[in-house]
Amino acid sequence: MDILSSLGLGRSYLEKIFSDAKSFKADISAGKGILDGKVIALAFFEPSTRTYTSFDVAAKRLGASVIGFRSQEDTSMAKGETLSDTIRMLDGYADCIAIRHRYDGAAKLAAEVAKNPVINCGDGRNEHPTQSIVDLYTIVESFGRIDGLTYCLMGDLRYSRTTNSLLYALGQFKPKAVYLSSPDQLAARSEVIDKLGFKCKKIDYDIDSVIEEVDVLYVTRIQKERFADETEYKKAKGSYYINEDLVARMKPEGILMHPLPRIDEIDRRVDRSKKAMYFEEANNGVPVRMAILKRMFDGGR
Amino acid sequence: MDILSSLGLGRSYLEKIFSDAKSFKADISAGKGILDGKVIALAFFEPSTRTYTSFDVAAKRLGASVIGFRSQEDTSMAKGETLSDTIRMLDGYADCIAIRHRYDGAAKLAAEVAKNPVINCGDGRNEHPTQSIVDLYTIVESFGRIDGLTYCLMGDLRYSRTTNSLLYALGQFKPKAVYLSSPDQLAARSEVIDKLGFKCKKIDYDIDSVIEEVDVLYVTRIQKERFADETEYKKAKGSYYINEDLVARMKPEGILMHPLPRIDEIDRRVDRSKKAMYFEEANNGVPVRMAILKRMFDGGR
Amino acid sequence: MDILSSLGLGRSYLEKIFSDAKSFKADISAGKGILDGKVIALAFFEPSTRTYTSFDVAAKRLGASVIGFRSQEDTSMAKGETLSDTIRMLDGYADCIAIRHRYDGAAKLAAEVAKNPVINCGDGRNEHPTQSIVDLYTIVESFGRIDGLTYCLMGDLRYSRTTNSLLYALGQFKPKAVYLSSPDQLAARSEVIDKLGFKCKKIDYDIDSVIEEVDVLYVTRIQKERFADETEYKKAKGSYYINEDLVARMKPEGILMHPLPRIDEIDRRVDRSKKAMYFEEANNGVPVRMAILKRMFDGGR
Repeated sequence: MDILSSLGLGRSYLEKIFSDAKSFKADISAGKGILDGKVIALAFFEPSTRTYTSFDVAAKRLGASVIGFRSQEDTSMAKGETLSDTIRMLDGYADCIAIRHRYDGAAKLAAEVAKNPVINCGDGRNEHPTQSIVDLYTIVESFGRIDGLTYCLMGDLRYSRTTNSLLYALGQFKPKAVYLSSPDQLAARSEVIDKLGFKCKKIDYDIDSVIEEVDVLYVTRIQKERFADETEYKKAKGSYYINEDLVARMKPEGILMHPLPRIDEIDRRVDRSKKAMYFEEANNGVPVRMAILKRMFDGGR
Repeated sequence: MDILSSLGLGRSYLEKIFSDAKSFKADISAGKGILDGKVIALAFFEPSTRTYTSFDVAAKRLGASVIGFRSQEDTSMAKGETLSDTIRMLDGYADCIAIRHRYDGAAKLAAEVAKNPVINCGDGRNEHPTQSIVDLYTIVESFGRIDGLTYCLMGDLRYSRTTNSLLYALGQFKPKAVYLSSPDQLAARSEVIDKLGFKCKKIDYDIDSVIEEVDVLYVTRIQKERFADETEYKKAKGSYYINEDLVARMKPEGILMHPLPRIDEIDRRVDRSKKAMYFEEANNGVPVRMAILKRMFDGGR
Repeated sequence: MDILSSLGLGRSYLEKIFSDAKSFKADISAGKGILDGKVIALAFFEPSTRTYTSFDVAAKRLGASVIGFRSQEDTSMAKGETLSDTIRMLDGYADCIAIRHRYDGAAKLAAEVAKNPVINCGDGRNEHPTQSIVDLYTIVESFGRIDGLTYCLMGDLRYSRTTNSLLYALGQFKPKAVYLSSPDQLAARSEVIDKLGFKCKKIDYDIDSVIEEVDVLYVTRIQKERFADETEYKKAKGSYYINEDLVARMKPEGILMHPLPRIDEIDRRVDRSKKAMYFEEANNGVPVRMAILKRMFDGGR
């Protein structure tokens, strides 16, 4: 019942979510009352806007009450309480816990402690499975399918939990090709690659060689907060950049995605391109998370 | 549909708001269900109690759900996201965005980005239009009218967005006289004065010469956070002070207003005077903002 | 109508709360709609998880709306507003104010200012009466009674508001014996002891001499934030410790309580003992606070 990793998400589960999300997107009021009387806890120990807010809205659109925080400083962890004790408490108060934390594995730890279902909303540089469901839904909206497309994931693939989860989720489908483009020190970690049931091709900086065949270009932010060393961050920063010229060379039906927030990696003039799908991707956070919450209490996952 | 400035608020709009606010104040439960299913986003990038809380309560009393934050540190702007990207996201999740920000013009920028209506809840030292509607409503409650009264605005008129908005809103009415009393370095800015359709009279410190003819004495706090220079703040601080003697010299029906918070500018013994209207002014925040939200979704503004 | 101190809580009031709490715990949905249309303000000027969250959930399970904050920095007090002005404002917006503050007496001050009922959720090192109601309810759940039991309160009894309130509340009942075990510099203050209608026995560190006769062992955290002096804190820290051996020596039906958060004072291996009642105690926060809120608006207290 927990959602901790995209590795465990089955294709039939995902397809049901896409179908429910589509209904909610068409009529946002269709969720009214579905989670009446339920309490959802949003336990965010790191800052967030999109994930926190879209879960908050999704739960409320379904009629649930929401409790939560988005800063460790507001909680008893500021007094030295352990994560495990905090989770145990929330588990007694709420029917589901959505957690974000700066440590890899924090969501798994929470799930071991909690009797009620736990949703991983980002744990360190590990995973962010509901983001990958939002991403896949956005791809389905554009192409009607996930199979048979050519993907290029670009940017910080070393510390990015969203690309990890997206890669794992793609394993349920049959991508035509998956390219990984990143500066060397930000290359995807081998422990992630090793878990994939399909081959990826590392292309380093060489986006030029593949841009014309890519259906989905998925760009990530370089996450300053994941670097132990400021110098390393400065080297990585600015090592890739998406501008109008690059986007123009994509197929007409190709799309540009980004989990947001973006900092400097996409030129703002790209926003007006119809290929720029990142704002729609963000919008999809609400109907997709409504679908996820609905199924969680349906007994399915 | 946006509410960005008091300059654009028509008299007939204001009078409708006053009428609805009166009904809600008489029976706070009269708003129940009016905004059922709506989501209001409170995007507060500066601290707030009254404005945030009264919008929060107003929305909930009308049956809307509220999402929001009141510190930039809780959001992805802490990771470097632009205001414009943050607003675009909220616009996808909520049916209306109420924004407070430390920069002049931030609400206007938000309105340019958002498809849904934006309410300016204070942008830097520029404007705070809903506060001025609350202020005018409080005056109507006391006098039954806004026309024909003598006003004195006192204190920090240079950096105060509430007095700017009040002056603009008074332009829809026919004040008998408007005095501006402030220490020299806190005098109202000429770009504000130039936009008024009526004459104000600057009286510097000389409140004594007019106190006996004033109907509405509107005092503001010196806002430490607007000063670039601590020395300038210290010079301004304590340069005016309202005590019981001064209030006693006002007309019997005269009222003393303040948008709050106050720091040291009003002696606490003045609180027990029946002329002290600032707590009632704060209370009026809820019914007036209920009326504002109601009309926003009525298709009117 | 206010709940400021456990001293004023009558036995018949407490027994009604226990009875309502039991019903809510058996069927959490039984509270639905009871506080429909009410607004509860949670004014937390100090960090909190359990108390804030359980009041938040309790109010929402009863159908009330909740407004609130849990950090002074989010409010106008950051601009220098007084507590009294902040409370006056909240009193105009909400039907009840639950307050936590770092100063002793803050809740009493709030109650003097507010027309609506005020609930003390912890004021400095003074009191935390609703915690003591939760504690007593937990004892009733375990033993079916409060009278005739042997209690040992252990740890920081000097700065702990929860033990003060628990001692005051026990005064409504007939404990067989009450032991106070603490390092010397953390002994219960005489102004607290003087108000009790029963005798306590100070046993310093000597828990060994009484552990076998204790029914309820109530342990508290040493609260770093209450010490004026870091050196004093370091001396106190680690001066008592509950491990499996000690718990094994308690009567089979004995229980171990703690208001949480705990830091290092209870070995985590104790958690698996059936005597460890602190997580259940935390869980009881919701049904007990539902009962408290319900009676508050019933006209009773």
